[in-house]
Amino acid sequence: MTSASPFHGLSAFPPTPADMDGRVDTDSLCRLLEPLCDAGVASIGLLGSTGIYAFLTQAERLRAVQAAVECVRGRVPIVVGVGALRTDHAVDLARDAATAGADALLLAPVSYTPLTQEEAYQHFLAVTKAVTLPLCIYNNPGTTHFTFSRDLLQRLSDIETIKAVKMPLPADGDVRGELAVLREKSGLAIGYSGDWGAAEALLSGADAWYSVIAGLLPRTALALTKAAIAGDDNETRRLDGLLEPLWKLFKEFGSVRVVYTLVEYLLLAAAELPRPLLPLGPTERQRVLDVAEPLAALERQSLV
Amino acid sequence: MTSASPFHGLSAFPPTPADMDGRVDTDSLCRLLEPLCDAGVASIGLLGSTGIYAFLTQAERLRAVQAAVECVRGRVPIVVGVGALRTDHAVDLARDAATAGADALLLAPVSYTPLTQEEAYQHFLAVTKAVTLPLCIYNNPGTTHFTFSRDLLQRLSDIETIKAVKMPLPADGDVRGELAVLREKSGLAIGYSGDWGAAEALLSGADAWYSVIAGLLPRTALALTKAAIAGDDNETRRLDGLLEPLWKLFKEFGSVRVVYTLVEYLLLAAAELPRPLLPLGPTERQRVLDVAEPLAALERQSLV
Repeated sequence: MTSASPFHGLSAFPPTPADMDGRVDTDSLCRLLEPLCDAGVASIGLLGSTGIYAFLTQAERLRAVQAAVECVRGRVPIVVGVGALRTDHAVDLARDAATAGADALLLAPVSYTPLTQEEAYQHFLAVTKAVTLPLCIYNNPGTTHFTFSRDLLQRLSDIETIKAVKMPLPADGDVRGELAVLREKSGLAIGYSGDWGAAEALLSGADAWYSVIAGLLPRTALALTKAAIAGDDNETRRLDGLLEPLWKLFKEFGSVRVVYTLVEYLLLAAAELPRPLLPLGPTERQRVLDVAEPLAALERQSLV
Repeated sequence: MTSASPFHGLSAFPPTPADMDGRVDTDSLCRLLEPLCDAGVASIGLLGSTGIYAFLTQAERLRAVQAAVECVRGRVPIVVGVGALRTDHAVDLARDAATAGADALLLAPVSYTPLTQEEAYQHFLAVTKAVTLPLCIYNNPGTTHFTFSRDLLQRLSDIETIKAVKMPLPADGDVRGELAVLREKSGLAIGYSGDWGAAEALLSGADAWYSVIAGLLPRTALALTKAAIAGDDNETRRLDGLLEPLWKLFKEFGSVRVVYTLVEYLLLAAAELPRPLLPLGPTERQRVLDVAEPLAALERQSLV
């Protein structure tokens, strides 16, 4: 466990505040990043799925990276999502991120036409040839609709700059078994997304939690991460229990819709979901706020 | 069955020739459209999935529509794919298509974050409010990862300009049963994509075949369509049998990879698949050409 690695420990994925036209509000973004730096997360995952990277233009994605680099000022490494449907666009985005001062890349094999394993391999290879920043494979079949074979993960791990993989929670829930298999074949740092399964994943020995809620409640998420890494089963489960009502809402509405509701509440700033995604209705919004209020209070008091 | 409708009969979906940077080769595109006009297909489906719309910029998509309108000169109605991840982008693309002289729109609910039924509805509503061209719902869960509920199809069919739906082949193969259910609830023209199931779909009473192969072999596809619409079971199945080896390759490699192999062969023009999609290797390419050669000869001689 290297605490200096952006791919070990808690990686916090903030939403990207933007207006209805997809113009990023860099001031609000920096207001979101400040508490992440204060809390001391292992890395900031900028422009992840809930950071709506898929819905932003290349120019706006560059603006977001530039603003983040400027306000984070090296306090926490920034991992930038550079996924795109076209390989040349992903390469351009990776170059932009590197030029703007990103510390690492996160690359998802976004697809329209279903991709072959070889096509995904060549896609990753092209990006790593163009930009030598450390790269995390973004394995998220729920949005990319691509499934990595074990062989492909192994082939990719042989590329020098590919250092980590962000995994979805295993369908059978057996993180320990999956980690054993993956570690047999690659030296990648292995982290998990899917906030509701993070406690179990970390207790099972995962290297990182790629966390949506850490983008808004970094101290709470960090406390959970530290407890789990220290093997403190009781404390980990206590904290996970506090967050459980939020996990339920993540699963019911999709985490991006919950998180954008919360940004407006916590930041008092407009953060529009990119249409066709719709904000939650008044009843759903109230349910989210009812659940979030005590959690936000705990976060503020660092009483977690 | 209105023969003047772009959504009844054979709708031919040509590939879009483009270079490695996604620049559309409008001359080659027009060379592909000419035989479609000559054959007299019911409509041209420009910028469909195998027309790589998802991989082209808004500017290139506009160039493609302008070129097509110019070379088709009203001989055949042009249905333009205007799918995009963002609603405002889809609206912009629809406006571009209308301004350039398209006859109809084809709209797929492209997704990254999985969409709710209401989100898809509002997406379609926004496009139909902005542009009043007749619109076909592009229902293709294999690429959009969105599944229309029956209720949503019915709600959409109540929007005045929504006239048709392009369906995927039903999983259980029962087109007749599906048509009965769909027709109970909506007045949409109902067509099918998935070339290997077209003969069965047309014989079962589908209004249209949204055809990939008709983009390259329009006479053959039209002969099959006409035989099926006339209820000539034997002739339909004979023609479908001739095409069967090609359907097998479509299923094995994905139709877009087969079609781009064939464009180069038939048109003697470069047509690059957008990376990360890779051209077929030499062995696979030869298998495609071996199958296509006799079919291309038949097409040329109109001996189908």
